[in-house]
Amino acid sequence: MTTHALDLATALDGDPAGPERRARTSDAYWTFIGPFGGISAATALRAVLEHPEREGDPLALTVNFCAPIARGEFAVRLRRSRGNRSSQHWSVEFTQGESAEAVLTASVITAARRDSFSHQRVDTPEMPAWESLAPAPNPSSLSWVSQYEFRFAEGKLVLSDTPPEPPRSSRSLLWLRDAPSRPLDFLSLTAMSDAFFGRLFQVIGRVPPFGTVSMTTYFHAGADELLAHGSAPLAAVADARVFHRSFGDQTAELYGRGGQLLATAVQVAYFRA
Amino acid sequence: MTTHALDLATALDGDPAGPERRARTSDAYWTFIGPFGGISAATALRAVLEHPEREGDPLALTVNFCAPIARGEFAVRLRRSRGNRSSQHWSVEFTQGESAEAVLTASVITAARRDSFSHQRVDTPEMPAWESLAPAPNPSSLSWVSQYEFRFAEGKLVLSDTPPEPPRSSRSLLWLRDAPSRPLDFLSLTAMSDAFFGRLFQVIGRVPPFGTVSMTTYFHAGADELLAHGSAPLAAVADARVFHRSFGDQTAELYGRGGQLLATAVQVAYFRA
Repeated sequence: MTTHALDLATALDGDPAGPERRARTSDAYWTFIGPFGGISAATALRAVLEHPEREGDPLALTVNFCAPIARGEFAVRLRRSRGNRSSQHWSVEFTQGESAEAVLTASVITAARRDSFSHQRVDTPEMPAWESLAPAPNPSSLSWVSQYEFRFAEGKLVLSDTPPEPPRSSRSLLWLRDAPSRPLDFLSLTAMSDAFFGRLFQVIGRVPPFGTVSMTTYFHAGADELLAHGSAPLAAVADARVFHRSFGDQTAELYGRGGQLLATAVQVAYFRA
Repeated sequence: MTTHALDLATALDGDPAGPERRARTSDAYWTFIGPFGGISAATALRAVLEHPEREGDPLALTVNFCAPIARGEFAVRLRRSRGNRSSQHWSVEFTQGESAEAVLTASVITAARRDSFSHQRVDTPEMPAWESLAPAPNPSSLSWVSQYEFRFAEGKLVLSDTPPEPPRSSRSLLWLRDAPSRPLDFLSLTAMSDAFFGRLFQVIGRVPPFGTVSMTTYFHAGADELLAHGSAPLAAVADARVFHRSFGDQTAELYGRGGQLLATAVQVAYFRA
């Protein structure tokens, strides 16, 4: 069995219990001027998940993209800020070369998920079945895009020579899956929570300078529920609420089998337009 | 002129340029077993804003509530993880007593907000004017609640002896203002982004053990725009998407004059129900 590109791209060297590990960027998940943010986020999470003292499932992950990560190696520093009976707080920092300044900082919360009152307020919006939609052709030369199969029911990226007036909707509704497919876990779910084209591109019909500054992903299911999901595609909704003074937001919801909400994410991104 | 309770509650001693400052919990903003999270978040942000090397306006703030903060003093450690030409990344940590373990960790991003393409996708939902709604009576003995004036158009907390079936809506639509009123700034906006009763209380009609674990607030306006808002009430929408296996989420949008979206927030909270 071949190792999936996602597992290769998020691999870490060094002692999982140690204060510093090493990882490297992946050409397979490359974007404009650095690695695909979803892979950096998954790498930070993986450092936590592999730590022998980690307990519980990931609950919340915030990743701050401080500076572009250059192609090559980086150091991953891990620290547990707090451990309680039911949750743990972890801090992760990536540095590169001789500089002490971080290129990425992250906080990860893991927690024991016990049975409780359960109530989901939102459902996957109605959309055609995966099988009935055509895969979107890779619309760009960015390598990360070809690591996913996207099947859009709504809000496919359309570029135009003149700015659409009024601006187009920022909402996309789609099926999303690793390509080739891979059983779902917290690493792939993390990466997929960032696997949406900048909402701004869709709204203005072009791709200006753009970069995610910070992303927060919440996980709403336990490891056993992701395992039960298997390698089926996820239904996803991505949208935005505002673009103003060089920054815009993005929201995402990822749904698994039976419409279970597995993860939600928000991000704020810089743009020059 | 009397100093507003919010300014007293978020005050920090010590050198604003130093690596460690001191602050204390406020009895005026107290909740179940610790300080109101919105005030802790605003205190973390204030440490960054007062630092002489801070540049730009707050863009994103993530606060992780690692452990209950005991009544009294705490140390506030501040570190700049990265500074670029257009943005800065700050890490904040609260510790208490002799323990090196954090009771709170936060990351704050500040950024220069330049004029750009501007487009707001969402509007304040229709609701009656502030003047036409009655202030909600303080529904509990929690002191933080009386620091705000809430005027609900929809989704006022209603407790009941038997669990509502089906569960009630988690959505609230309301006007929100400091009481007494105070000109809006990033500190009060931060605190208000957490000033919503646990969505779960509304859904199940009672108040079980509950606590916010992590909150992320994005700011969508510059300091000059908040200044222009003055001390008028904010229109707010709070909702949730899922409660499952001991944790649930919360989303909030805060709108200013003319329906401008000033801030959005998400949080994940623990509950036992």
